[in-house]
Amino acid sequence: MTAAADGAAIDYPPTARSRIKRLHERALYDRETVHGILDAGLLCHVGYTIDDHPYVTPTCYWRQGERVYWHGSSASKMLRRQAQGVPVCFTVSLLDGLVLARSGYHSSINYRSVMAFGTAEQVTDEAEILARLEFFQERLTAGRWAELRPASDQELKATTMMSLELKEVAAKVRRGPPSDEEEDYDLPVWAGVVPIRYQIGAPEDDPRLKPGIAQPDYLGDVKVG
Amino acid sequence: MTAAADGAAIDYPPTARSRIKRLHERALYDRETVHGILDAGLLCHVGYTIDDHPYVTPTCYWRQGERVYWHGSSASKMLRRQAQGVPVCFTVSLLDGLVLARSGYHSSINYRSVMAFGTAEQVTDEAEILARLEFFQERLTAGRWAELRPASDQELKATTMMSLELKEVAAKVRRGPPSDEEEDYDLPVWAGVVPIRYQIGAPEDDPRLKPGIAQPDYLGDVKVG
Repeated sequence: MTAAADGAAIDYPPTARSRIKRLHERALYDRETVHGILDAGLLCHVGYTIDDHPYVTPTCYWRQGERVYWHGSSASKMLRRQAQGVPVCFTVSLLDGLVLARSGYHSSINYRSVMAFGTAEQVTDEAEILARLEFFQERLTAGRWAELRPASDQELKATTMMSLELKEVAAKVRRGPPSDEEEDYDLPVWAGVVPIRYQIGAPEDDPRLKPGIAQPDYLGDVKVG
Repeated sequence: MTAAADGAAIDYPPTARSRIKRLHERALYDRETVHGILDAGLLCHVGYTIDDHPYVTPTCYWRQGERVYWHGSSASKMLRRQAQGVPVCFTVSLLDGLVLARSGYHSSINYRSVMAFGTAEQVTDEAEILARLEFFQERLTAGRWAELRPASDQELKATTMMSLELKEVAAKVRRGPPSDEEEDYDLPVWAGVVPIRYQIGAPEDDPRLKPGIAQPDYLGDVKVG
């Protein structure tokens, strides 16, 4: 029997790799939680090996259906390696706060994280690559794709896109106040949570921006985290 | 000859693993940059392998001198594996903004990142573990360590601490406005940067906080990113 926090649904049956053993009361294997975390984040960390040595590369990603996607230069060491069809670990983590307990031992952080395992696959169809890049751009800034200068053939050739199916995947989430030892609640020390979240700042015009171009409304909708 | 951005010093001579090949104009190997990024972050992503499969685990870390440290439950799969003395990749990345160029191809993010390679070593001396935990707590909330209920022997035994020497390490940083193709600067599209940073929210009292305990001043000094 697999334990998931709060009796949540198990849409992604845990495997030896994806089952969360430590603090399994924070483990979630349901689609709504996994998708929610993935759709809130922007940066993932992809783990892979070269000559048996681990590498962890941060990169932007997005989710479409039951897959996550990331892309970059075809010359990238990470992407050249992954395009060979190797096992990867895809991790997204969002920091939500410091949890200051009455002991160091129970002090922690609040977070939302997802780990997905599998073999990354390269997206090779140019029309599909373009459509997925459009989705990524529109997800962040709806309406911008149509304003941009279209990608050239050379740029498309210089782009490698990878994807990973969401199959062996787990979320781990901590929220709420500290969980102290019962006898520690009487201690005369402050305890609680210091929330941390991403703040979107005021957009900064490119110093070479053509005169007369206003900041588009979609900049006000940018959201990360 | 190794290229580093802006002619910066090279304190960590790059190796085959740590040399940044793509966009090497963003590569930095100097102590000031590496320490600065490490001291701004709170979450790292540690890559390691189990049975040749890559794992990427997010966890809190801190820097002391030329080492980074992280810790957790002695029962953790990650720490049990790392305590065997295996190669790790330690990555910290801080998201600083969306870079919205006039083409999708040159759109990017601003970020500060550090990657360090090596073999993680376990810290086994209990006095050293305590001193380093104190450093970590004080770094985030100066003055709090003395207020906390001291760690019990059982808690110390249940804690595994790892460290990695900063030796094979590189920083990669992107900042500033988009870098468009020269002919694209004439396009009638907005371009610039949408800054993203961590915001520390108002501390939330533990619902079981003892009456009469005020929020300590150090909560106002919490800083991440």
